[in-house]
Amino acid sequence: MSDTELPEMLAPEQDELDEDDRLRPEFVDAVLDAVRAGDDEEARALVEPLHPADIADLFELTPHEDRAGLARALKDLLDGDVFAEMNDYVREDLIDALTPTEVADIASELDTDDAVAIIEDLEEADQRAVLRALDPDDRAAIEEALSYPEETAGRLMQRELIAVPDHWTVGDVIDFLRHHEELTTDFWEIFVVDAGHHPVGTCQLSWILRTPRSIAIGDVMKREQTLIPVDMDQEEVALRFQKYALISAAVVDASDRLVGMITVDDIVHIIQQEAGEDALRLSGAGEGDINEPIRFTVRTRIAWLVVNLGATMLSASVVGLFQGEIARFALLAALMPIVSALGGNAGTQTLAVVVRALATNQLTSSNTVRMLAREFQIALCNGGALGLVGAVGSYVILGNLQLSIVFAIAMVINSIVAGLVGVIVPVALDKANVDPAVSSAVFVTTATDVMGFFSFLGLASLWGLGG
Amino acid sequence: MSDTELPEMLAPEQDELDEDDRLRPEFVDAVLDAVRAGDDEEARALVEPLHPADIADLFELTPHEDRAGLARALKDLLDGDVFAEMNDYVREDLIDALTPTEVADIASELDTDDAVAIIEDLEEADQRAVLRALDPDDRAAIEEALSYPEETAGRLMQRELIAVPDHWTVGDVIDFLRHHEELTTDFWEIFVVDAGHHPVGTCQLSWILRTPRSIAIGDVMKREQTLIPVDMDQEEVALRFQKYALISAAVVDASDRLVGMITVDDIVHIIQQEAGEDALRLSGAGEGDINEPIRFTVRTRIAWLVVNLGATMLSASVVGLFQGEIARFALLAALMPIVSALGGNAGTQTLAVVVRALATNQLTSSNTVRMLAREFQIALCNGGALGLVGAVGSYVILGNLQLSIVFAIAMVINSIVAGLVGVIVPVALDKANVDPAVSSAVFVTTATDVMGFFSFLGLASLWGLGG
Repeated sequence: MSDTELPEMLAPEQDELDEDDRLRPEFVDAVLDAVRAGDDEEARALVEPLHPADIADLFELTPHEDRAGLARALKDLLDGDVFAEMNDYVREDLIDALTPTEVADIASELDTDDAVAIIEDLEEADQRAVLRALDPDDRAAIEEALSYPEETAGRLMQRELIAVPDHWTVGDVIDFLRHHEELTTDFWEIFVVDAGHHPVGTCQLSWILRTPRSIAIGDVMKREQTLIPVDMDQEEVALRFQKYALISAAVVDASDRLVGMITVDDIVHIIQQEAGEDALRLSGAGEGDINEPIRFTVRTRIAWLVVNLGATMLSASVVGLFQGEIARFALLAALMPIVSALGGNAGTQTLAVVVRALATNQLTSSNTVRMLAREFQIALCNGGALGLVGAVGSYVILGNLQLSIVFAIAMVINSIVAGLVGVIVPVALDKANVDPAVSSAVFVTTATDVMGFFSFLGLASLWGLGG
Repeated sequence: MSDTELPEMLAPEQDELDEDDRLRPEFVDAVLDAVRAGDDEEARALVEPLHPADIADLFELTPHEDRAGLARALKDLLDGDVFAEMNDYVREDLIDALTPTEVADIASELDTDDAVAIIEDLEEADQRAVLRALDPDDRAAIEEALSYPEETAGRLMQRELIAVPDHWTVGDVIDFLRHHEELTTDFWEIFVVDAGHHPVGTCQLSWILRTPRSIAIGDVMKREQTLIPVDMDQEEVALRFQKYALISAAVVDASDRLVGMITVDDIVHIIQQEAGEDALRLSGAGEGDINEPIRFTVRTRIAWLVVNLGATMLSASVVGLFQGEIARFALLAALMPIVSALGGNAGTQTLAVVVRALATNQLTSSNTVRMLAREFQIALCNGGALGLVGAVGSYVILGNLQLSIVFAIAMVINSIVAGLVGVIVPVALDKANVDPAVSSAVFVTTATDVMGFFSFLGLASLWGLGG
C-alpha cells in the first residue's frame, strides 16, 4: 500500500493521461486555454512530455477551428512521427496550413511508407510542389511508391531495409551493420539475396546474435519465407502477416526482385481498420471516421438510407395488399412489425457471423454447405422457441387463438428465411467479388421485412382473420 | 511472359492454396478422401508441405466427425505450432481425443503463452492431469500464468525473454547470447534490468548490432518504455501496442518487477478479434465463432432475440394505441414501418460509428459534445432530405397531401431521435462500464421504433387523418 509499491515508471505522462491511456479532458482544455490566451510557451511546456502518438491524439481532440493555432504554438514539437500517427483528415487540416518546403522537411524525416501516407492525400499541385522540395533520393523513392495503386503493398512498404549477399558470414553481416552509418536502424529481420537481388532467405536478428561469427548467413536464415508481391492488396497483406505471425516481410516486384519491406507495426493499423470496418459497412456508415468533414459523412450515409427507403417501400406495398384485412382487424397492424423485427434481428446476427467468417478466410467453398445447415438448425430452434413465446404471450394478452397460431407460424417461417438469406446473400456477393459487408444488409432486411409481412398477413387472410 | 519471370518462391504451396491463400476445396477433399479410404500415408504426403497455420485451417474446414480420423492419420505432423494456430473449439475437439501425456508433450514444445492457451480451456480434471505430466519448470510457469484472470496480460505473456543487467556492455550481451544454449531464440528486443529486476530500458536488437562492443548497454537502450502491468486487460494491451507501435513489451508485477514479455504476433490476433467483435456484438451474435457448438450459439442468440422481442412488443403497444385510426385509415399501417425503419437505419449508422470511436479511444469526454452536435447536423440533413423524398413520393402515389406532410415531419423527428440516441446511449453505457457494443442496439432501435410509430400515428391522429 506504500507509494514505493506503485509501478511509477509505467506512467511517465501520468498527469496527462487517464487510466485508459487517453488524454484527460482537463489537460486538453489547459493546452487550448494557453493557446487561446497566446501563451505558446505554456502550451509547449505542457505538451513537451507527450509521446508523438499522444500529440497526434491532442490534435484529433482539438476542435477544427483551434487546430491551426495549436500547430503554430507547438511548431517545433510537430515532427514526422506526430504526423505519421495522426488521423488522415486532421493531418490534411494541418498540412494545408504548411508550405511545401515545410511538408518536405517533415516527409524527409520519415520512412518511405509514412512519407507516402502524408503526401498521397495532397492535391496534385501541392504534391508536385512538395516532391520538388525533397532531395532527389527521397523524391525518387516516394514517386515510385506513388506509382503503385492505393492500398497495395507498394504504398505500404519502406525502401529502408538490410539486404546481404548469401555468401556472407554472420561476422560479415555484423561488421557491415556496425560500419555503415547510413543504414536504417529500425529493422527486425535482414533479407538474404542472391546476385540478382532475389530474396533467398530471411534471418531474425536474434538468430544472428546467437550464432558464432564464422557461420555462413545461409546456414542461419530461414529459406521458407512469405514474399509479398508489390501489387498485393493491403487487406491480403494483413491476412498473411496474421496467418504466418510475421514481424516483417520482403516485398518483391514482378521479377521477384527485392524492392522493399513491410513491418508489422504498419500492418497493425490495417488489421484494426479492416476488422472494424465490418460493423460500419454493415450499417452503411462508410469509413465511419469521426474526423471526416460532415458533407462527406452526409453523402455516404444518405446513399444507404435512400436504398433502404426504397426497400422499405417494397415491404410497405406488401402491407398495402392487405389493407382490407387491416381495416377490419387493426390488431394485425400492431403484431406485424414484431414478425418482421424478429426476422431482421435474426438475419443480422447470421449476417454478422458470415461476413466476419468470410473476411477472415474461415468460410470457404469447403464449408459453405455446412454453414447453411448450421444456420438452418439455429433458425429452427430460435424461431420455434420465440414463436412459442409469442403465441403464448399474445394469447394471454389478446385471447385470440387463431391470431396467436398465425403469429407463431409466421415467426418460424421468417426466422428460417432470415437464417438462409443471411448466409446465401453474403456468400453470393463474395463470389461475385462484391464486398459482402457493404451490400448484404439491405437484401437481408428487405427479405425479412417482405416475408415477415407477407407470411403473417397472408396466413391471417387465409385463415379468415379480419375477413 | 516466360516461366522464369514468375515469382516461383512466392508460392511453395501453390497447389494447395488458392489465390487468396485459402486451402482449395479440392485439396481438402483429396485429404479427407485419403483418410476415409484408410490411406494415411497419402494423407500425410499431401499435408506435409503445408505451413502449420494451414494445417490448422485444414482441421477447421474438416467436418466435426472427420477430425479425429484426420488427427490420427497426421499424428506426427500435429506439433505445438499447429495447435497454437487452431480455433479454440476445433482444438478442444482434438485435445479431447488425446491423453494427458500427449497434451503435455505438445505443450512443452511451446512458449508459455501458447501452452496456456491450449491448457486453459481443458476441464479441471484434465488440466490437472496435463500439469502433472509436464516437467516441473514448465508446470510452474503455466500454473503461474493460469493464476491470472483470463484475457489479461498475465495469460498472454511468455516467460521466455532476455533480460540483462544495466552495467553490461554490448559485447557482454552478445557473448551472453552466444554462449547460453538454453536461452529462447525468438525475441526482438532485450530488456535491461536493475539489481531488483525492475526494467530500466528496452533495446532493439538492431541497435545492438549497429553498436561497437565496448559501449555500455545503458547508452544504447531506450529509457522511455511502455510497461504492461500483469493484470491489464488484453484489449487495453492491444491498444497500447497499436498506439505506440510496439513489437514487444515488458510485463511487470505489482512491485514493478519484470515477469514476462508480450510480443506483437500474439497481439495481432487480439486486435483483429476485438475490432471484429463490434459487428457481432451489435447484432447480438456473441463471439460469432462458426466452430462453436450449435447449442452455445442458439443460447447466445436467443437471449438477444428475446430481449428484442420484448422491446418490439413495447412498440407494438404504441401501435395498439392507434387501432381506431388504423381501422379507419389502413394506409397508416403501410407507411408507419417506413418511418421506424428509417430511424432504425440512421440510428444503427450513428451507433456503429460511436461504438468504433469509443473502442479506439477516439471519442473521449473532450469531444463528446462535438460528436453530438455533429450527429445532430447529419440527422437534420438526412432526415430532411429523406422526408422530402418520402413526402413527394407518397404524394405522387397516394395523392393525400396531409398524409404526406405528416409522413415527412415524422421522418425528420425520427431521424433526429436516431442521431441523438445513437450517441447518448453508447456513451452513457461506456461511462457506466458496460460494453456499448453489446447493449446499445436494443435501446436505440426501441427508441426509433417507438418514436417512429408514435410521431407518425400521433401526428396523423392530431391532424384528424383516419378520424
